[in-house]
Amino acid sequence: MSGRLTVVGLGPGNLAQITPEALDAVREAEDFFGYIPYLDRLSLQPHQRRHASDNREELSRAEAALTLVAAGGKVCVVSGGDPGVFAMAAAVCEAIENGPPAWREIDFRVVPGVTAMLAVAAKAGAPLGHDFCAISLSDNLKPWSLIEKRLALAAEAGFVMAFYNPISKARPHQLATAFDVLRAHLPGSVPVIFGRAAGRADERMRVVPLSEASSDMADMATCIIVGSVETRLIEREGQQPMVYSPRSSKRES
Amino acid sequence: MSGRLTVVGLGPGNLAQITPEALDAVREAEDFFGYIPYLDRLSLQPHQRRHASDNREELSRAEAALTLVAAGGKVCVVSGGDPGVFAMAAAVCEAIENGPPAWREIDFRVVPGVTAMLAVAAKAGAPLGHDFCAISLSDNLKPWSLIEKRLALAAEAGFVMAFYNPISKARPHQLATAFDVLRAHLPGSVPVIFGRAAGRADERMRVVPLSEASSDMADMATCIIVGSVETRLIEREGQQPMVYSPRSSKRES
Repeated sequence: MSGRLTVVGLGPGNLAQITPEALDAVREAEDFFGYIPYLDRLSLQPHQRRHASDNREELSRAEAALTLVAAGGKVCVVSGGDPGVFAMAAAVCEAIENGPPAWREIDFRVVPGVTAMLAVAAKAGAPLGHDFCAISLSDNLKPWSLIEKRLALAAEAGFVMAFYNPISKARPHQLATAFDVLRAHLPGSVPVIFGRAAGRADERMRVVPLSEASSDMADMATCIIVGSVETRLIEREGQQPMVYSPRSSKRES
Repeated sequence: MSGRLTVVGLGPGNLAQITPEALDAVREAEDFFGYIPYLDRLSLQPHQRRHASDNREELSRAEAALTLVAAGGKVCVVSGGDPGVFAMAAAVCEAIENGPPAWREIDFRVVPGVTAMLAVAAKAGAPLGHDFCAISLSDNLKPWSLIEKRLALAAEAGFVMAFYNPISKARPHQLATAFDVLRAHLPGSVPVIFGRAAGRADERMRVVPLSEASSDMADMATCIIVGSVETRLIEREGQQPMVYSPRSSKRES
């Protein structure tokens, strides 16, 4: 079996933010599996084949890729951002664990990338400069009660929070509920950053206090960062304020 | 004032993991501030100047860089990994907030990078595939009691945890205490990944159950990832096991 599987992170969407390692992996593969908008970012050669699939088909996409690798294919599975953060690497591992034993011996590699929260944080200043957590707000694969519990504990811990998958057509109401949960645990002055398409031509950044955060400020392509009690706002003339979380904390436990 | 300040993330240390955007920023700058090993990674031109400083001088380094920018300098402040994660971006923001008002108008930009936990996770499989947090274990800038509180709450929330700054000569005992705290809250079977210099020639990866994790498995250059109760290990013949956190969770709150 001479097949090879590489799960590649394409970064936030700006060509200048893809690593050379990711571009090399794309160059060396022959078959590409992924969600359509990520495949659309690739400039493929005539001998390279696209296998596009829809957003919520991660597991069947991973199985199809592994099947082709087991038959000798040189396969790339592509993710936006980093493949290890709410993306395809975990789906591929899950498919390997539950698939035929031979899949465990497949030549398998994950190529990391710049994940969305890092790109959004960079545009805002340094909101992730202190301890933080990353939470998917999608309740497709976990109970909503667990998400609410995590929000409350993260607020109690003083973590800055980054939210992936904040809202979608199938989940229109969860984000507003999440903000309500946070408002019960954090002061309304805590800054909330809505970062959409950070680093791309259609980038949109917005900073509002938690008291004013609302779900219509986000869409599927938005990564949201909620500051901690210690996160600071630096006002600047004619520019967006800078948001940062100091490296030091004077909070007692 | 025509100076410019770019805070650049050089990624985990492998040249193939630096983004083109970061390399462009390095090409365009004339003065470079940073911790010596990060400056050593740069191939500078004869007209480009190094201003090296030691590990724990972040704030004075940021102030020196801003002073030069205010005088018209084209300055890069470099970090390993991503500058926004326990690195220089927050120190620069802090210096701007507490410095002369003119510093707020400085042309300031952060260039994101692949942070250590993403590179370590990629080598291990997909341990950050579900909700996770990142905690600096250094108590130089926050009370140790706060770190212990965060460890306990993160365990209760079911977060996978990535630890930065796990140990140093000045802080030899904290990591062992952290493992003890975790063992009081998590089963001993939870996998712990010690990832040192991920993606570099001297890379060293090790996976042990929490019950066996000990502080002598880490040094300053190690990023540690502690799985959640749901994190899975896939054994493979003649290879390191794969570690991943499933995208779905059946835990009730």
